Amino acid sequence: MLQSRLFTKTKRESPKGEKSVNAILLQRAGFCYKEMAGVYTYLPLGLRVLRKIERIVREEMENVSGQEILMSVLQPKSLWLKTGRWKEGIGEVMYKCKGKEEIGLGPTHEEMLTDIVRNYIHSFEDLPVYIYQIQTKFRKEPRARSGLIRGREFEMKDLYSFHQSESDFKKYYKKVQKAYFKIFRRCGLKAILTEASGVGFTKGYTHEFQVLSAAGEDTIVYCPKGHFSQNKEVAKFQAGDNCPVCGEKLLQGKAIEVGNIFPLGVKYSQSIGAFFQDRDGKKKPIIMGCYGVGISRLMGAIVEVHHDGKGIIWPGSVSPFDVHLLSLQLSNKMSQREKLEKAAKKVYRILQKQNVDVLYDDRKNKSPGEKFADADLIGIPYRIVVSDRMLRKQSVEIKRRDKKIARFVKIKQLPAFLRKNLRLNKT
Amino acid sequence: MLQSRLFTKTKRESPKGEKSVNAILLQRAGFCYKEMAGVYTYLPLGLRVLRKIERIVREEMENVSGQEILMSVLQPKSLWLKTGRWKEGIGEVMYKCKGKEEIGLGPTHEEMLTDIVRNYIHSFEDLPVYIYQIQTKFRKEPRARSGLIRGREFEMKDLYSFHQSESDFKKYYKKVQKAYFKIFRRCGLKAILTEASGVGFTKGYTHEFQVLSAAGEDTIVYCPKGHFSQNKEVAKFQAGDNCPVCGEKLLQGKAIEVGNIFPLGVKYSQSIGAFFQDRDGKKKPIIMGCYGVGISRLMGAIVEVHHDGKGIIWPGSVSPFDVHLLSLQLSNKMSQREKLEKAAKKVYRILQKQNVDVLYDDRKNKSPGEKFADADLIGIPYRIVVSDRMLRKQSVEIKRRDKKIARFVKIKQLPAFLRKNLRLNKT
Repeated sequence: MLQSRLFTKTKRESPKGEKSVNAILLQRAGFCYKEMAGVYTYLPLGLRVLRKIERIVREEMENVSGQEILMSVLQPKSLWLKTGRWKEGIGEVMYKCKGKEEIGLGPTHEEMLTDIVRNYIHSFEDLPVYIYQIQTKFRKEPRARSGLIRGREFEMKDLYSFHQSESDFKKYYKKVQKAYFKIFRRCGLKAILTEASGVGFTKGYTHEFQVLSAAGEDTIVYCPKGHFSQNKEVAKFQAGDNCPVCGEKLLQGKAIEVGNIFPLGVKYSQSIGAFFQDRDGKKKPIIMGCYGVGISRLMGAIVEVHHDGKGIIWPGSVSPFDVHLLSLQLSNKMSQREKLEKAAKKVYRILQKQNVDVLYDDRKNKSPGEKFADADLIGIPYRIVVSDRMLRKQSVEIKRRDKKIARFVKIKQLPAFLRKNLRLNKT
Repeated sequence: MLQSRLFTKTKRESPKGEKSVNAILLQRAGFCYKEMAGVYTYLPLGLRVLRKIERIVREEMENVSGQEILMSVLQPKSLWLKTGRWKEGIGEVMYKCKGKEEIGLGPTHEEMLTDIVRNYIHSFEDLPVYIYQIQTKFRKEPRARSGLIRGREFEMKDLYSFHQSESDFKKYYKKVQKAYFKIFRRCGLKAILTEASGVGFTKGYTHEFQVLSAAGEDTIVYCPKGHFSQNKEVAKFQAGDNCPVCGEKLLQGKAIEVGNIFPLGVKYSQSIGAFFQDRDGKKKPIIMGCYGVGISRLMGAIVEVHHDGKGIIWPGSVSPFDVHLLSLQLSNKMSQREKLEKAAKKVYRILQKQNVDVLYDDRKNKSPGEKFADADLIGIPYRIVVSDRMLRKQSVEIKRRDKKIARFVKIKQLPAFLRKNLRLNKT
């Protein structure tokens, strides 16, 4: 894509009153536009990142046999009255519209999906099924001050599993745990499986996937060797205690919850009436599990973890583009201008031919310094520089956003170099 | 995909009280689940169709240089007060949530996007720009009785264009007209460009894209040769009059509005304050245009146009799968069962290898009659039948949903046949 065509522009100043790093960088670099506290529009660069995260999550959901659907935002009050959550629990943060009938905006979809499944699942032979969606959720968050980390309107992947037995549920729960580690690893994050408080209807713990970050709203007590982690809210240990598994001293840190998984038991199936006929001929409520990933929150968490003083440093897997191509007029010789443009265009075409997703900074009214500053802020991991100084040698400079090392490569050797060295889109 | 894994099931009976053909067929075949009047969940088959329509629309938007973004659903009241639409006009059908601050659910996004663009566009050099999104919209429709044709929650593609001059706008308006014809043609629909009433701030007509259908809520007066069409609401002609272009007798018919395009002039830029500095140094309001396609409505319209007494007949471009593979036990010889299954699996693998998106009806508890009835209802255009009767000849039967002709092809010749004869995914 030509950067001159991109309608957004970077901003030098931080948005007023904004303290969250991800909110500042994503707005300054033109990924997001803040409509209200906790409500963001995804601009062209931001939407590209969101789509890449969605793709990773979708692939891993397919790997655990998830069937994708898309449920509605508008939800009837009647359904929520059945589970007693219209006013209590999550119902407290539900946006509601009055009218002839009262309607809620889905803060989560257990009620709705259990009601749908009730219409299709009747026998043990129909089970198990795994159903997910990637969808926009709404919650009246009183403190939406952390950019994409805590939204009032946010994108979430929610997977629900339906089983005939507790043991079948447990097997799948473990499988999704693994899939979740893979999702976060592919997004460039190291997630820590953390025990958290069970909601009323679950015995024992539920699990959160926490990413250490000063921007986190949670605190976890964890083993540095990865054997153990508990959310401070329920922790029986504290920093300095010995890890109950390996004996290592436990640490404490702020963390961002990027995902959670928990058993739902039969709470929803029983109250909404999702029963199946078991092998023994008896009618039983379906056993359920539920598994969330905050897609837009992930985007915020990635920025919190991967940035420096100059801007964002996207992991390749979720970067809006694979390569940022900069055309730089370093000398004052205006005579070189045309040649430079020709060479840069040539490189742009080579990259496109190699299926490299490239943002080409072709802007003519920007100095090299401005172009570098923008590239640092936007944070595409690979950078290819075409400058008039390198024209004679017909070479380009290849850099990584997070490293100082640069390599010079002849333009005609570029296709071979790209195929060999840049592991693009491979995660 | 294995049909035995699909969690939805077809229904023999029409949903109670439903009269709309698209609503009945989409629910019976398991594409959609009705949550409330005008509010639907997209089940696995339905979501696949929706995504295919989205892809077509997206490709054509890229072809007219559209930059994709994703705006928020939640919209601040303050923005709508600026254009006077919080309570009037479209504001009358806006869902609103009370709280500390009043928030609306976007029924359209002129206000929001003009406000965003205001932050990035300052000079004539920044223009033109074309920005679109594919997003969920909300409108309090008092009569949401036409299935996906009129939703209270629906998916829409809205493109907005920003120009420095009226002439530049007009050129782009023509370009989008062409893109729209291409979108509808690719979706298997014949759209008629129809003059409609200008909204208050537009002089002359706006344009609707109408598809003739008994299910339509609009009535158009049109030339059968395609020279002329007007919405009945503003028509100066009536059925039987001569076409003002070719003299042919005009016809009248019910039609579904699948898209509309209209000039916005400076209504939004002026009230929201989106100005640019022109070549002459003067500050001027940006000239805007707006172009909508009802994505979910398109899905409904396609069903209204492409169905018969047995079910849906999807155009290949938007079908949930390219091919429906049926494995049929026609004889009573149970000894053949294993051989049949083996042959069907082989064909399934061949199809997958050829990148054919295939739904394989591998269900064991369904009779051939039930499988055919389901296939007719679901409406995938190509059907490949593997039956025990054809096992000896190692052949399969290839049929089209809308034609009675069948062809027999040897399994080993199938890859070559597929490459030659099925123009899959080509639209």
